[in-house]
Amino acid sequence: MVQVQIIESKDFSYNRNVETGNQEQMNAVLHIINEVKTHGDQAVKAFTKQFDRVDIEELLVSEEEIQAAYAKVSQEYIQTIREARDNIRRYHEKQKQSSWFTTEENGTVLGQKVTPLDRVGVYVPGGTAAYPSSVLMNVIPAQIAGVREIVMCTPPGKDGIPPIILVAAKECGVTHIYRIGGAQAVAALAYGTESIPKVDKITGPGNIYVAIAKKMVFGMVDIDMIAGPSEILVACDESADASYAAADMLSQAEHDVLAAAYCVTLSRQKAEEIHRELEIQLAQLNRNEIAKQSIENQARIIIAPNRAEMVRVINEIAPEHLEMMVEEPFSYLGEIRHAGAIFLGRYSSEPVGDYFAGPNHVLPTSGTARFSSPLSVDDFIKKSSVIYYSKQAMIEHGRKIAGFANEEGLDAHAKAVAIRIEKEGL
Amino acid sequence: MVQVQIIESKDFSYNRNVETGNQEQMNAVLHIINEVKTHGDQAVKAFTKQFDRVDIEELLVSEEEIQAAYAKVSQEYIQTIREARDNIRRYHEKQKQSSWFTTEENGTVLGQKVTPLDRVGVYVPGGTAAYPSSVLMNVIPAQIAGVREIVMCTPPGKDGIPPIILVAAKECGVTHIYRIGGAQAVAALAYGTESIPKVDKITGPGNIYVAIAKKMVFGMVDIDMIAGPSEILVACDESADASYAAADMLSQAEHDVLAAAYCVTLSRQKAEEIHRELEIQLAQLNRNEIAKQSIENQARIIIAPNRAEMVRVINEIAPEHLEMMVEEPFSYLGEIRHAGAIFLGRYSSEPVGDYFAGPNHVLPTSGTARFSSPLSVDDFIKKSSVIYYSKQAMIEHGRKIAGFANEEGLDAHAKAVAIRIEKEGL
Repeated sequence: MVQVQIIESKDFSYNRNVETGNQEQMNAVLHIINEVKTHGDQAVKAFTKQFDRVDIEELLVSEEEIQAAYAKVSQEYIQTIREARDNIRRYHEKQKQSSWFTTEENGTVLGQKVTPLDRVGVYVPGGTAAYPSSVLMNVIPAQIAGVREIVMCTPPGKDGIPPIILVAAKECGVTHIYRIGGAQAVAALAYGTESIPKVDKITGPGNIYVAIAKKMVFGMVDIDMIAGPSEILVACDESADASYAAADMLSQAEHDVLAAAYCVTLSRQKAEEIHRELEIQLAQLNRNEIAKQSIENQARIIIAPNRAEMVRVINEIAPEHLEMMVEEPFSYLGEIRHAGAIFLGRYSSEPVGDYFAGPNHVLPTSGTARFSSPLSVDDFIKKSSVIYYSKQAMIEHGRKIAGFANEEGLDAHAKAVAIRIEKEGL
Repeated sequence: MVQVQIIESKDFSYNRNVETGNQEQMNAVLHIINEVKTHGDQAVKAFTKQFDRVDIEELLVSEEEIQAAYAKVSQEYIQTIREARDNIRRYHEKQKQSSWFTTEENGTVLGQKVTPLDRVGVYVPGGTAAYPSSVLMNVIPAQIAGVREIVMCTPPGKDGIPPIILVAAKECGVTHIYRIGGAQAVAALAYGTESIPKVDKITGPGNIYVAIAKKMVFGMVDIDMIAGPSEILVACDESADASYAAADMLSQAEHDVLAAAYCVTLSRQKAEEIHRELEIQLAQLNRNEIAKQSIENQARIIIAPNRAEMVRVINEIAPEHLEMMVEEPFSYLGEIRHAGAIFLGRYSSEPVGDYFAGPNHVLPTSGTARFSSPLSVDDFIKKSSVIYYSKQAMIEHGRKIAGFANEEGLDAHAKAVAIRIEKEGL
């Protein structure tokens, strides 16, 4: 038996929690950051010994090690990685923005220049959470953006770095790989050490210490979002196949006991069908224990009386992953205001987007889709405004600008304009 | 006499400092946030009494008060505000992004949906730092993005809110104005109270308590950057007029004793001319005391031996404001990698951009132009990925996707795809 909470939409309210770590964890991370700032490589190696129980001499992974990794991965898997990489590249190419400018007849030129970041660091977690898809999803947008140097940090692991991680990194264009993990890796990327270059932005998932470290170095460098537990919301009308809805909920639930699988349906009957399917399919899963805990503690099946209420629940949850298992799924796009990724129709199961289709799988969690976007090329560029005022533009507008400055009480601002007007008799 | 440090570029290194607040200030802010979270309006009013020394009954500024403010502002000033507003709108209209999608012959549709944020909060500081231009620059991008509700918070002030702030807010489309300031305003916007609606993003400058509060609520809501002291870098070749360079440096220096005015020149002679001009012009300023301290403590005139070295200094500083007072200023655009706003040529004094030309004056400070952009329409939208896989697409790619999931050890992910392949005999 698996217990799933089935509730009516009027009784559902979504409480997001975005706390990152407790005081003890924060103090531990602050200590690590300060040590790495002061002692560089030496501190990084000491923490690696302490936390990863690995003695490392050389932080940089050599080209030979990467080549050796290729021999340990099947050709078929490498081919799938390449096909996924090409799909991800093609989608992200569409996100590239151009510099632009406008002109006026008085000579004014205004513009916006787009420049890639110089250097970024991608964190790739170790252990059971080492996913090559995560390498592709973090690295490719940076590469498409034009970032010259993309460095990757990943824990050394007792048996070394998983070969597939090295292969994925090589296939998508990582410049340098360092065998370090945890808060010490984040600190090294933020402040630089003898071996590890300081970067401008750090992206990628990690455990609570990595998340705290990223939050602490934010400002010194940029970071991507702090990811919370993964979520899915499956929206079903009468046309939905309950077994597909349950399978997709379970694909989220197997990630983590804190992962949340929600479902919103238009009838109690559909809710009960899905409940039964969850029970049947759970029994067949390898990660059965994790998935069961997630389903019992985090999952909700919400019954909405009508379409409008279903949409309200969707926007209230602002889910990381949203599946619209409904008739005419495209007709909902206008009403859906908050979601990381929207999967439309009966064949668009979440794993399609996790691995292969092209859009990024790094998505806003815990309701942050209200204001955040999937990881994209935008995250690896920045913009500069460009302003050119001609003599004629200064003649036309200079006095107004000086007047505005005077009204704000900023007399040196006014004088910076006035000196030009006076000196050149404009 | 004013002392200015003149140094050679080889001896210059830029140390950015992005610490936000000390432990005592952080504890004070944490207390305020918790009180507002728990006690809502009552806490907001109590803190307003404590810090602003004003008793407020009604938090919302009424339409009558806004209308009364118009009577206290000159028609000429209102006209300039409107002209600036229209310029700012025109520039920001160019930043709007469209939703897009791609299709494949097998039926796949992939896309990216652009949606404005639902509700944003703009913080406008009180006291001498109450700038109507800041209202325009924060509100207009949100409005162009399509944000439905734009609320503004500003301290009540002993003599009420400055009329020009109310006029500027009205002119650019603020929905509601609340007479509260400080960390309590940020907390109210992040968590909501009985009177004040919870927003999705908070923007706008403020004192150290406001900055700390913004950093603390980040994650619960989005925030714009945490602004450091303002900076300018004036790059001069032999063609530059030293009096203009000095005037523009002083327009930055008058902001704050911590504001930094840098200059990079190609000759010691030009550096000394600028030094003399700083001395002459400083004596004529109203905010002479502030400007003098800023120039003596923060300013640097850096002598670069050649153009390449001048560009290196520019990119090293990554200035908030960069003025290129050089011949053929447009020829430098490719080499300038890091700058918030780039002002080209002898007439493009910084105040042109601060008030009037159109680009945003909220710019990345303290070297964060390495990875951050001016405030823009992008800050008030978010994106959702859209994925539609057809039956045919699932036939073509389903097995590869399931295989990828299996390789990552995520069996429920593989099964979510496999159940469709099996059940429909794909």
